[in-house]
Amino acid sequence: MANKEIPYKIYLEESELPSSWYNMRADMKNKPAPLLNPGTGQPMTAPELEGVFCSELVKQELDNDNAQIAIPQEILDFYKMYRPSPLVRAYFLEKQLDTPAKIYYKFEGNNTSGSHKLNSAIAQAYYAKKQGLKGVTTETGAGQWGTALSMACAFFGLDCKVYMVKVSYEQKPFRREVMRTYGASVTPSPSETTDVGKKILEAHPGTTGSLGCAISEAVEVAVKSEGYRYVLGSVLNQVLLHQSVIGLETKTALDKYGVHPDIIIGCAGGGSNLGGLIAPFMGQKLRGEADYRIIAVEPASCPSFTRGRFAYDFCDTGKVCPLAKMYTLGCDFIPAPNHAGGLRYHGMSTTLSQLYADGYMEATSVKQTDVFQAAEQFARVEGILPAPESSHAIRVAIDEALKCKETGEEKTIVFGLTGTGYFDMVAYERFHNNEMSDYVPTDEELAESFKSLPQIS
Amino acid sequence: MANKEIPYKIYLEESELPSSWYNMRADMKNKPAPLLNPGTGQPMTAPELEGVFCSELVKQELDNDNAQIAIPQEILDFYKMYRPSPLVRAYFLEKQLDTPAKIYYKFEGNNTSGSHKLNSAIAQAYYAKKQGLKGVTTETGAGQWGTALSMACAFFGLDCKVYMVKVSYEQKPFRREVMRTYGASVTPSPSETTDVGKKILEAHPGTTGSLGCAISEAVEVAVKSEGYRYVLGSVLNQVLLHQSVIGLETKTALDKYGVHPDIIIGCAGGGSNLGGLIAPFMGQKLRGEADYRIIAVEPASCPSFTRGRFAYDFCDTGKVCPLAKMYTLGCDFIPAPNHAGGLRYHGMSTTLSQLYADGYMEATSVKQTDVFQAAEQFARVEGILPAPESSHAIRVAIDEALKCKETGEEKTIVFGLTGTGYFDMVAYERFHNNEMSDYVPTDEELAESFKSLPQIS
Repeated sequence: MANKEIPYKIYLEESELPSSWYNMRADMKNKPAPLLNPGTGQPMTAPELEGVFCSELVKQELDNDNAQIAIPQEILDFYKMYRPSPLVRAYFLEKQLDTPAKIYYKFEGNNTSGSHKLNSAIAQAYYAKKQGLKGVTTETGAGQWGTALSMACAFFGLDCKVYMVKVSYEQKPFRREVMRTYGASVTPSPSETTDVGKKILEAHPGTTGSLGCAISEAVEVAVKSEGYRYVLGSVLNQVLLHQSVIGLETKTALDKYGVHPDIIIGCAGGGSNLGGLIAPFMGQKLRGEADYRIIAVEPASCPSFTRGRFAYDFCDTGKVCPLAKMYTLGCDFIPAPNHAGGLRYHGMSTTLSQLYADGYMEATSVKQTDVFQAAEQFARVEGILPAPESSHAIRVAIDEALKCKETGEEKTIVFGLTGTGYFDMVAYERFHNNEMSDYVPTDEELAESFKSLPQIS
Repeated sequence: MANKEIPYKIYLEESELPSSWYNMRADMKNKPAPLLNPGTGQPMTAPELEGVFCSELVKQELDNDNAQIAIPQEILDFYKMYRPSPLVRAYFLEKQLDTPAKIYYKFEGNNTSGSHKLNSAIAQAYYAKKQGLKGVTTETGAGQWGTALSMACAFFGLDCKVYMVKVSYEQKPFRREVMRTYGASVTPSPSETTDVGKKILEAHPGTTGSLGCAISEAVEVAVKSEGYRYVLGSVLNQVLLHQSVIGLETKTALDKYGVHPDIIIGCAGGGSNLGGLIAPFMGQKLRGEADYRIIAVEPASCPSFTRGRFAYDFCDTGKVCPLAKMYTLGCDFIPAPNHAGGLRYHGMSTTLSQLYADGYMEATSVKQTDVFQAAEQFARVEGILPAPESSHAIRVAIDEALKCKETGEEKTIVFGLTGTGYFDMVAYERFHNNEMSDYVPTDEELAESFKSLPQIS
């Protein structure tokens, strides 16, 4: 099909929006390895998982068979509030780079959470409501996930308890206020509200908290409170499933104009955005119907794919959550300060890990200063101030487009612009003041953190 | 025409976008009164204005005759970056209010300036570039205008000098960093960089600045620097002209679905958003082709329309700018602290003032706490965190919809949602903590400030 003239922004009609999520696992020959019970070393069963997660979400988590999972009408209605997100042709960036490459980005930042996180938050809140729960608990670091979940819970009238890493709680008071606007209770973690929090505060009185600790507190509250469950914004299979709406919209929009991408690029922390963006394209690749270069981009300071091990590891630093087989730096790994808070996870989605191990995708890592240079360049010509996380993908998209300039190839590049940087101006300020760290862990440091990997027979 | 099913969000196709701005003045029987030279009391001439403003913009400022003014292609291209903005059917809000009213809002916040200000910023930057200027100067209070202008200047490679009210510079460092990301130089005002700044600092060493002072500094720098002009984000006729793109898109979208609004509501500070939103509807009203209720909403703490005088006054508190005939509280009026920084101007657009005096529109004022209650209610069901300014319109839209609930009338209400509140979380925090002021000026205070009105023969 010949290309029609491509508009700057492609917005799908409501009738063109996906009505089902796509589950990549159904088309994978090698399924992702199951979660293991850390006590028994045996695969986690549905009843075990249902103590922590909503029943319907457990079903989705364990479903390796159904490729299409219908999106409930209530979620489709909510999606209409901020979806479809635009697929943007980066004409201005192409012009500035003077590249023959054609660049597109799927922009997920036009909602109050400022990121793609809302896609899964509304799904998880819906199933919690459907199950008759009173509320949910979660942790948040940078704050996008907590904001998204607060919005979703407000919509369904669910109580929302967010444990926010103390240092973020204090340094990002604005994120906290957005969550409060949506009626969530936000507690700095570690706190006196949980046993694990008290224990940590006793051992480390001045601690500013960590994501691992906030997870442990949120899980404890969910398990001990009648009518509550715990929800998580990345890493899990269910989250990738919900996020497939990103890729499905992207593919429909490209197909509408007869565009076949050559390269698909996404930033990767736990994998929620990348897994969602690539889903239908990876499906074609798995079924042998089409081929694409798929590139995961991670920070050089937290290089799970590029320098990690593919092994069973704890999902949390508190070592209370199930074990997952994934590319990991070891759950004791402490990444150097990096402003892409959403990419500072030691592990990676089990689904994406398996796909990477099987050679279906590439991975690369980039340094923070290079990322912010790309962010600023992009902001100035495309008019969107990108989140630090998203800017990892921008960096590699620009690099690939510049390679096309060298070779003269007219490749089509699609990348995921996961969100906006409005709450990340401290990071931009450091960049402007040349105060950014580009620290990369040494081999010795990684070797040390790999020692924390559990021994699984 | 029968109503088709209305989608949640109406995005126009590129081919449906306006290619001309609409100039309401052409259809006004009573033209807005001319700006006067404060020295001579005579109407400002084009050559006088061209010392401060770009030539093409002066032409637009003085043009009371041409209804359609073609939008240059370069501006149309830039508009594509973030326009069309969606016209949203507030299905969720209607449901929550249980009202038979049909509510629509035109959302201008989906761009990095966070507001509609970009519509005029890019036009003014374009004409500056076309004139061969090196750069422009401006002032900013809350920061939306400064951000918008920085983005526009970055796009055309123009230098951008922003004088930011010192208290905002210090309390809103994030806004400042966004401007720096776009390459603008941001100077806290009053500063040592201008004569007027030095004079003020000498007289008031500890002052945290004011918009009036920042205007005076920006104008001084523009006039004294080779290749620079001053630009302004509201009040002026040219700004309303550029902002007409909001109303034109709104009307096209409504017409497409056969919807005739009964009530059109916009917040009003200097009038840039309101004047833009209502433009084509007011045009029909002026030509006797259709009728609409048009409501301007202002803060009770700064009630220019509802309690001001229609008289010639200085546009700035420094009394160096031309005199404009407008609804004004007196240029010495100091509004009580109010978080809607964009609505704290003592005067009002001369065009809107004339229309209000001639009975073509209504005005009402609302208190700050009521505004934030509406903002939070709206955010929770519609998923957008509104700017305090925009929330004035939300308040009155909700009130009108609730009246429909009483009477059972199925009125169609359209309001302008000018922007997002991401940089206004301090205001939301005060609201959550019940620390908001609802101070309204007394009649005695207004009588006192009216004494500052100049005596014009």
